Amino acid sequence: MPALQPIEIADASPRVRAVYDDIMATRQIDWVNNFWKMLAHDPATLERIWSNIKQVMAPGALDPLVKELIYVAVSATNGCEYCVASHTAAARKKGMSDAMLGELLAVVGMANQTNALANGYRVEVDGAFQ
Amino acid sequence: MPALQPIEIADASPRVRAVYDDIMATRQIDWVNNFWKMLAHDPATLERIWSNIKQVMAPGALDPLVKELIYVAVSATNGCEYCVASHTAAARKKGMSDAMLGELLAVVGMANQTNALANGYRVEVDGAFQ
Amino acid sequence: MPALQPIEIADASPRVRAVYDDIMATRQIDWVNNFWKMLAHDPATLERIWSNIKQVMAPGALDPLVKELIYVAVSATNGCEYCVASHTAAARKKGMSDAMLGELLAVVGMANQTNALANGYRVEVDGAFQ
Amino acid sequence: MPALQPIEIADASPRVRAVYDDIMATRQIDWVNNFWKMLAHDPATLERIWSNIKQVMAPGALDPLVKELIYVAVSATNGCEYCVASHTAAARKKGMSDAMLGELLAVVGMANQTNALANGYRVEVDGAFQ
Amino acid sequence: MPALQPIEIADASPRVRAVYDDIMATRQIDWVNNFWKMLAHDPATLERIWSNIKQVMAPGALDPLVKELIYVAVSATNGCEYCVASHTAAARKKGMSDAMLGELLAVVGMANQTNALANGYRVEVDGAFQ
Amino acid sequence: MPALQPIEIADASPRVRAVYDDIMATRQIDWVNNFWKMLAHDPATLERIWSNIKQVMAPGALDPLVKELIYVAVSATNGCEYCVASHTAAARKKGMSDAMLGELLAVVGMANQTNALANGYRVEVDGAFQ
Repeated sequence: MPALQPIEIADASPRVRAVYDDIMATRQIDWVNNFWKMLAHDPATLERIWSNIKQVMAPGALDPLVKELIYVAVSATNGCEYCVASHTAAARKKGMSDAMLGELLAVVGMANQTNALANGYRVEVDGAFQ
Repeated sequence: MPALQPIEIADASPRVRAVYDDIMATRQIDWVNNFWKMLAHDPATLERIWSNIKQVMAPGALDPLVKELIYVAVSATNGCEYCVASHTAAARKKGMSDAMLGELLAVVGMANQTNALANGYRVEVDGAFQ
Repeated sequence: MPALQPIEIADASPRVRAVYDDIMATRQIDWVNNFWKMLAHDPATLERIWSNIKQVMAPGALDPLVKELIYVAVSATNGCEYCVASHTAAARKKGMSDAMLGELLAVVGMANQTNALANGYRVEVDGAFQ
Repeated sequence: MPALQPIEIADASPRVRAVYDDIMATRQIDWVNNFWKMLAHDPATLERIWSNIKQVMAPGALDPLVKELIYVAVSATNGCEYCVASHTAAARKKGMSDAMLGELLAVVGMANQTNALANGYRVEVDGAFQ
Repeated sequence: MPALQPIEIADASPRVRAVYDDIMATRQIDWVNNFWKMLAHDPATLERIWSNIKQVMAPGALDPLVKELIYVAVSATNGCEYCVASHTAAARKKGMSDAMLGELLAVVGMANQTNALANGYRVEVDGAFQ
Repeated sequence: MPALQPIEIADASPRVRAVYDDIMATRQIDWVNNFWKMLAHDPATLERIWSNIKQVMAPGALDPLVKELIYVAVSATNGCEYCVASHTAAARKKGMSDAMLGELLAVVGMANQTNALANGYRVEVDGAFQ
């Protein structure tokens, strides 16, 4: 059970509702996921995080699917269940196949393994990598 | 200073040397980075991790550059300096531009931020994400 | 489901019961939360952690509410659901408002974001910070 | 050595220089720390993170010193050396005494300890905390 | 709810079934736990991780029970509920007593505490430890 | 460079000196490592952590070498360089061979890998593990 009750669309203040509307319009869906309904208790943070997400996840030098894969990679590493679930769903919508998911998580697993090995052996950074 | 001295190419046993040679041939370089020179103290682990890396990082449903970006994302999240340095260098070799690096780290930062927010608010996973 | 069944007050050995009684007296409540009921399987650890907590969370140069906020910040960063839930409740009892919770988590989110950015860019510590 | 060379004030583009100037004016100092000089390689991120930091760290329901303590708590938990160094310095400027630092880190240590214990015992969240 | 449905034994392809059979034969049990049933969506990873686990967890300079204790220690530190549950069960099968579990988690808690303290105080590595 | 200057033996107050003397007597050495010299700025924490460590690391159901291995496993997972260095040295003194170190880190690497995989696939805990 969460720290607070999610603020439903029908109960949102105009300030919160404006963000909800932009989320739904941007994503072309008619619902808002719980993450935003929780941030809605703190409207300044809701607005800030949403505008950040729009900027950061927009197409650029990296395409939006790659950005979602990176988001899942971080979330799996941190063990954030909510974020793994929501960004895996987002990656699916952007075209992630089962094979891509398998390879993504294989890389995430390897990276976590070799991070621990490098830390455990205290490997010095090679001059060539500087 | 590391836990053990790296095992240099000239000092490698035939078993270790075979892995070093495969690393250099695969990457078309004439040196071996410190990570492998440390694992060389445990040849079974050296062989296992290297064969794992070759399998996991090979082209597949995801291209090798995307896989390197994911590797950097995990390493930055874990704060593994060695791994950030070595995989940033690897991503550069595979074509990562400054703009791609900036966007990669922007996503990594956002994901770490929203992971902490989702955990702090204990947001429940939406039914639609199941 | 936990690793072991919690040891209920009625089933506690005298050694464990003494700690439970001190917890209830100190907090002026008539129940004991599951964390202590699990540690009760290892009475030496139960006693040690409880006496540590009393010492560390006591009023000092920092007031008890600030200490609870710090506890929540660490727990959200680590993604420890139990600890977020229990210390958010404790912070509420000590006076944390909704606005304080929102600001607390906003700072926690930002810190996790910039930690990842500093690690990803491998920023060198400025001489002025030494 | 960092991933990129920091962009010095004298070398900054007008867009980057505007952020640097705002950092120096806001903090009433005549230098810019390396974190911002690295983000400057990605001006959109530099502007976004700086405006986020100003919003999040401003006085509100929590005072700025408490916010810095929370920042240090997260950074120590994540083991981000740069962030611990820079935010410990910031907390000092805002009035953190040696005694406050000692108590802060004592709480951070305890929280990390009990987070691991709660995870290791898989303690169930008490109904009273929901 | 998981990202994908576990692949049951009856539904496994011959390639997946071969790994399942080896898991059951090696462990002398007649079922397969969900971890492997999820990896089965990516047979190359299933084979790789299983052969890795067999190699790494085999008796050697460290006995298998000690290896399971180490596995639980890492999993509790990372807050991976699945891994804590499965490796605690594995350690029980290999002889872990309640007293051993209590001491294991006490060490894990202490290590997480002092890791945070060392990071927070930015303690320099002593020359004698190099 | 650390947050504060270590307090040397010659400069220690009687309260701090008593802990230093107990550390040296317990370990049968004539020096004190930097971790304690930093905690010395907060004598209550110095005393508490030292008495905790003596209790937790004492022989019991697990022998002291196994406890040191667990300590290294946690420290490598967290990427705490100081703690990896100091507890690897402690494990060496208690008899850890090169082969044991190699196997320890191999398990630590595997555990970090499968933790990430279990999180990424959101594997449900099997009923048999409850």
